[in-house]
Amino acid sequence: MRRVKNLVVAVAAVGFLCASPGFGAPSPTSADEGALEHNFDALIHPEELRAWMKLLAAEPNHVSSPHDKANADQILAWFKSWGWDAHIETFSVLYPKPLSETLELLSPHKFTATLQEPPIPGDSSATATDPALPAYLAYARDGDATAGLIYVNYGIVDDYKVLERLGVSVKGKIVIARYGSGWRGLKPRLAQEHGAIGCIIYSDPAQDGYSIDDTYPIGPMRPPQGIQRGSVLDMSLYPGDPLTPGIAATSDAKRLQISDAPTIMKIPTIPVSYADAQVLLASLQGPVAPAPWRGALPITYHVGPGTAPVHLAVKSDWQLGAIYDVIAMMKGSTWPDQWVVRGNHHDGWVFGASDPLSGQVALLAEAKAFGSLAAHGWHPKRTLVYASWDGEEPMLMGSTEWGEAHAAELKRKVVLYLNSDANERGFLEVGGSHDFQHLVNEVAGEVTDPETGVPIGQRLRAKIRIAALAPTAPEHIKAEAKIAADPGKDFPIEALGSGSDFSVFLDHLGVPALNVGFAEEGRSGGVYHSRYDTFEHHSRFVDPGFIYDALLAKTIGRLVERVADSELPVQNAGGLANAISEYLEQVKKLADEEREQAEAQAGLLHDRAFQLAADPTKSSGVPAALDRVPHIEVASLEDAIDRLKRSAKGYDDALAKNGAHLSPTQLARLQLLMLDIDQTLAPEVGLPGRTWNKNLVYAPGRDTGYEAKTLPGVREAIEERRWSDAPRYAELTANALNAYSNRLDQATIVLNGK
Amino acid sequence: MRRVKNLVVAVAAVGFLCASPGFGAPSPTSADEGALEHNFDALIHPEELRAWMKLLAAEPNHVSSPHDKANADQILAWFKSWGWDAHIETFSVLYPKPLSETLELLSPHKFTATLQEPPIPGDSSATATDPALPAYLAYARDGDATAGLIYVNYGIVDDYKVLERLGVSVKGKIVIARYGSGWRGLKPRLAQEHGAIGCIIYSDPAQDGYSIDDTYPIGPMRPPQGIQRGSVLDMSLYPGDPLTPGIAATSDAKRLQISDAPTIMKIPTIPVSYADAQVLLASLQGPVAPAPWRGALPITYHVGPGTAPVHLAVKSDWQLGAIYDVIAMMKGSTWPDQWVVRGNHHDGWVFGASDPLSGQVALLAEAKAFGSLAAHGWHPKRTLVYASWDGEEPMLMGSTEWGEAHAAELKRKVVLYLNSDANERGFLEVGGSHDFQHLVNEVAGEVTDPETGVPIGQRLRAKIRIAALAPTAPEHIKAEAKIAADPGKDFPIEALGSGSDFSVFLDHLGVPALNVGFAEEGRSGGVYHSRYDTFEHHSRFVDPGFIYDALLAKTIGRLVERVADSELPVQNAGGLANAISEYLEQVKKLADEEREQAEAQAGLLHDRAFQLAADPTKSSGVPAALDRVPHIEVASLEDAIDRLKRSAKGYDDALAKNGAHLSPTQLARLQLLMLDIDQTLAPEVGLPGRTWNKNLVYAPGRDTGYEAKTLPGVREAIEERRWSDAPRYAELTANALNAYSNRLDQATIVLNGK
Repeated sequence: MRRVKNLVVAVAAVGFLCASPGFGAPSPTSADEGALEHNFDALIHPEELRAWMKLLAAEPNHVSSPHDKANADQILAWFKSWGWDAHIETFSVLYPKPLSETLELLSPHKFTATLQEPPIPGDSSATATDPALPAYLAYARDGDATAGLIYVNYGIVDDYKVLERLGVSVKGKIVIARYGSGWRGLKPRLAQEHGAIGCIIYSDPAQDGYSIDDTYPIGPMRPPQGIQRGSVLDMSLYPGDPLTPGIAATSDAKRLQISDAPTIMKIPTIPVSYADAQVLLASLQGPVAPAPWRGALPITYHVGPGTAPVHLAVKSDWQLGAIYDVIAMMKGSTWPDQWVVRGNHHDGWVFGASDPLSGQVALLAEAKAFGSLAAHGWHPKRTLVYASWDGEEPMLMGSTEWGEAHAAELKRKVVLYLNSDANERGFLEVGGSHDFQHLVNEVAGEVTDPETGVPIGQRLRAKIRIAALAPTAPEHIKAEAKIAADPGKDFPIEALGSGSDFSVFLDHLGVPALNVGFAEEGRSGGVYHSRYDTFEHHSRFVDPGFIYDALLAKTIGRLVERVADSELPVQNAGGLANAISEYLEQVKKLADEEREQAEAQAGLLHDRAFQLAADPTKSSGVPAALDRVPHIEVASLEDAIDRLKRSAKGYDDALAKNGAHLSPTQLARLQLLMLDIDQTLAPEVGLPGRTWNKNLVYAPGRDTGYEAKTLPGVREAIEERRWSDAPRYAELTANALNAYSNRLDQATIVLNGK
Repeated sequence: MRRVKNLVVAVAAVGFLCASPGFGAPSPTSADEGALEHNFDALIHPEELRAWMKLLAAEPNHVSSPHDKANADQILAWFKSWGWDAHIETFSVLYPKPLSETLELLSPHKFTATLQEPPIPGDSSATATDPALPAYLAYARDGDATAGLIYVNYGIVDDYKVLERLGVSVKGKIVIARYGSGWRGLKPRLAQEHGAIGCIIYSDPAQDGYSIDDTYPIGPMRPPQGIQRGSVLDMSLYPGDPLTPGIAATSDAKRLQISDAPTIMKIPTIPVSYADAQVLLASLQGPVAPAPWRGALPITYHVGPGTAPVHLAVKSDWQLGAIYDVIAMMKGSTWPDQWVVRGNHHDGWVFGASDPLSGQVALLAEAKAFGSLAAHGWHPKRTLVYASWDGEEPMLMGSTEWGEAHAAELKRKVVLYLNSDANERGFLEVGGSHDFQHLVNEVAGEVTDPETGVPIGQRLRAKIRIAALAPTAPEHIKAEAKIAADPGKDFPIEALGSGSDFSVFLDHLGVPALNVGFAEEGRSGGVYHSRYDTFEHHSRFVDPGFIYDALLAKTIGRLVERVADSELPVQNAGGLANAISEYLEQVKKLADEEREQAEAQAGLLHDRAFQLAADPTKSSGVPAALDRVPHIEVASLEDAIDRLKRSAKGYDDALAKNGAHLSPTQLARLQLLMLDIDQTLAPEVGLPGRTWNKNLVYAPGRDTGYEAKTLPGVREAIEERRWSDAPRYAELTANALNAYSNRLDQATIVLNGK
């Protein structure tokens, strides 16, 4: 799994963030550090990454496949051979494997969906000996349904509002949704919430097929028979094993009954190719789909139902399966109880070349390089923990269970978690905790992009500026471009939602995290979670020469080394304060806009404008009346942010002024205060209805999945019209921010030698 | 022909216009007028319109076809039978008819485009006895070209900028452009200007095919073999006979040589269906087309060229052909030398049911009703001139030549020209001279929409308000919605460009004009200019029951009657003043934005941002550096608009206060001053490089065609970087506005009895 952006419209998830005022220009790299990094880079060999991927991607490597275990053993052996103290940690998670799948259109002529991805000559899909699992959606409920079919576009919240206006109900029906515009698992969840009894998800060529570029094997995009597999567990409720929320899925753990596990879907769900989907969609009648709902198939998209019912049946073997996390440690020479954790998963859906092995081989290259440096006398001051996770695809199992197993120790020791996942040729893409934004900018200013010869940060800034030229670019993109044009300011990093192994750290433990990768040019999305995500596809299209996979190793390796060896805390508090301040502005604007919208809609309803503007020969109803939106009490939150800005400035200034002159006692006290400061943002209370998610600054959107919701307690309360939750979470979030400011103020006192 | 909006994105051509401050609520209809209009409406019978259309659309009726002449004779007979003084006026215009057409892809397997529209059972296309002309583009140059093919998207100005950045030249190549986003004739004109030697235009299903709705005969949209014919004369230079610019194409007129006629294209050009186009487009290689260039065919759109050359040959018979305008007059009882002219063309491309006969039968219904009223004792105070134009499709021939033949008389006598063209079920759509905007609002407030039972103006206001809810709605649409929500303000009418028979009146003679129709729900665009624009298609989809064609007759009939019988001038000067004021704001904003864009681009070029943001493995160059944009001297124009606002308020107030109390002498003086006041806006000088176009407020865009450019002398000078023309035309436009204000002031003096 990885966070997939819609290839057609990359929606910026966050607003612009102001730069860190404390630092100004990036601090120069010391001579020692420069030499070390130079040595590190010289130890990264693209041809090694290529050989590792070829081996790891030779056979299907999904959870419980022989090659998954073999890969874990292989990775363990490599870590050990490179001098790391490594072991495999095993968990037992619920892992359903498909037994049978059927999808048919029953009349006038029976059509049986192929549900198959034929092998492509010259590609691993044609030569692997170990059969992959059939394409399926893990954790869809067993079921057998026959009913009329309704096309629901992406199947997200707004789509059901449109259906309601069209007078089309999915109750008792099977829905067909296209991939895109939100997390896969939302589609069956929202379908079942609206009364559907089955769900089909297909890949429209508008998103990742022939509309975008030529299809594989001619080009990188999804061929007509390509199918996107995946998990449909309810990710934003809690990730990890569905039977052991909040605790480790050890062999003796207390487990929920399957029927009680709230993250498992309630309806049968199946993924299909666009070759199969076209037949189903062409059979639909009823209203013509609204313009934004139309994909790139050569048909008139109708909403349905058609004349013929659809028969959908899926059945899985619901067993516990073993997952194998490979954990490698390199003990810190100075502060062994301060950990820098670095992870990437090793399980795929089939061959998993781009996802996840492109990131995995980068991680391996870093580990080998650090091992080599250690063999020649360098030792990290803090402990390095390198984790090769298993079971990420079914739902971040390896990282989540490990995080839950070692929660107390991790909260005590982890300075930063660094994640990667699928990687490709292109632009730097970083999301995460904004107190590390300045560090990211420093490193991005020093690592050279191989395609252009300029630092990766400079290239990213150019991209941000050019994106703002689009006539439809929204205001926040234009504001971001202004920042990007000023080399004295830090370019913004994204807020993280979910969809990869950072989740347990950031969302649950409150440990700060960064997710780092390169993206956009490699078109790995064209074979995402299909049988065609192969070594050949990756080598031909996604990262020819393994240049960007090697670059990922150099980039993250440098971040790891900086965090591991820095005497002083690497956080910049101003970056976080500015980000949160911007998020509050967004939330206030959201409330104002929702209020104006409700008022405008009331006027339109009163004047019957919706009826009068509609074609009376077509079905189109009136939208449901919007609640009036009260004013939300956010004064305490505004005060807390004002204070955070002051405290951040005080801290950043004091660090810049006095950081170099601290006594060992002062340094120890400072480190202690700053090590777990981010955890103040994730108090025990958690988010309403999904308390596994503790972080009050970042969360996966309940109705978006991958995409982050910032200040989620307040923002989602407004979005979901939970009017009493909004002020309550404004207060809780204010308290969390004040706790962060308290820590900063204590640290400032230490820095100022008082 | 008619003004076709892109079915996918209806771009609002003009900004918002403030309401007329002078009048406030619509003036009540007098009892007499109400009774008359009631009687008029009762004389409009949909079943008559249906029968007329069935007869007129029974055989192909293009210029020079037997049925075209037969229709003129039939219409003449009807006018006479209804008591009108009618005659046929004939002109001889250059009218090329296709002799041969060839389009082939030469390798690897030879593909010969069908260029055919097969008959559809149950449709006139299968039963007509008279063969239509082959589908062709009139006034494309004869030629035979073999060359590589390049896809140029819509083939408009911005598309060639994109091609330049992609490093793709069309020099010596054949281009293929899709219909949409600008006037058809721009595509070969711009292609030849960029060095192409041939041009293919096709209908992409994204614009009017299966993407929008089911295709004919199941639904209304363009079937795979449907072809859009049309004229490619250079419309915005001058319409009408290409050999007699500015003078009437009488038999003895002095004519240009064909080779000297500047409006005739220089390269062979051919229209094709999307069934044929798909084969050509699928053969292309080279860069993948940018996202906005991709249509709805199930292929990856490449820019080209492909491996195989294309062979294109067209040859026409270049002869003079006769066109037959049917002119019917009903003499005014009080002011016979003040004319209200009403027109709609009768020639089509094949059967021409929707275009133009839907508007033609409305015109006939009005004429019959006025004839009947006249037979029962009512007589218009002003003279009615009803014109059934011929030769509109080849390029507004009938109206233009008639306008040029009678220029002096028309300028002396015409109070208003009222035009219609293709009509369909849906919403009122009016464009034209803004001093008549208030009149339109009055009538629109009284005519009932048959689908909703509310006045057509109220329904239009609802549509405007709902359109502004779209998340991407631009600011001027939101501003327009605010006006539409206020029943005390006039909803805005559009500015007119070209594409129908109003052009000679508005653009050349300076006579005010209104173009009136109903649109949007009928989907006539799906068969536009194809063999499938038949009686059956119109009856089934475009206006079942001929309800909206009848409604058009009621709406325009009411406008005609008001203008014909009003003692006082019907103009409202405030409507015009506000519109022009808004246009100047747009022009100033345009200059500012162009200036900012040039400055921003200079910074991006300096920082090499375009290169750094690009994928170096794909061809993408740097955009051409934009000129720095000087500040434009518009003070005189601003002064003139300030004055116009004052003069308009003075006039409108005086008219409201004293209009009812004028002596016959005062009334005569007032009428004389106001009759031709709009002509002050169209001084002899004309627009730069296209002096046939005299109007300095409205013009067809040189690079848009259908769409209007307001304050064109200034606006297009900025757009086209003609920096010396901009202040010159600001001054000329200011003079024209001052002349209008002078007239208003004189009229105000009359009204105030001084």
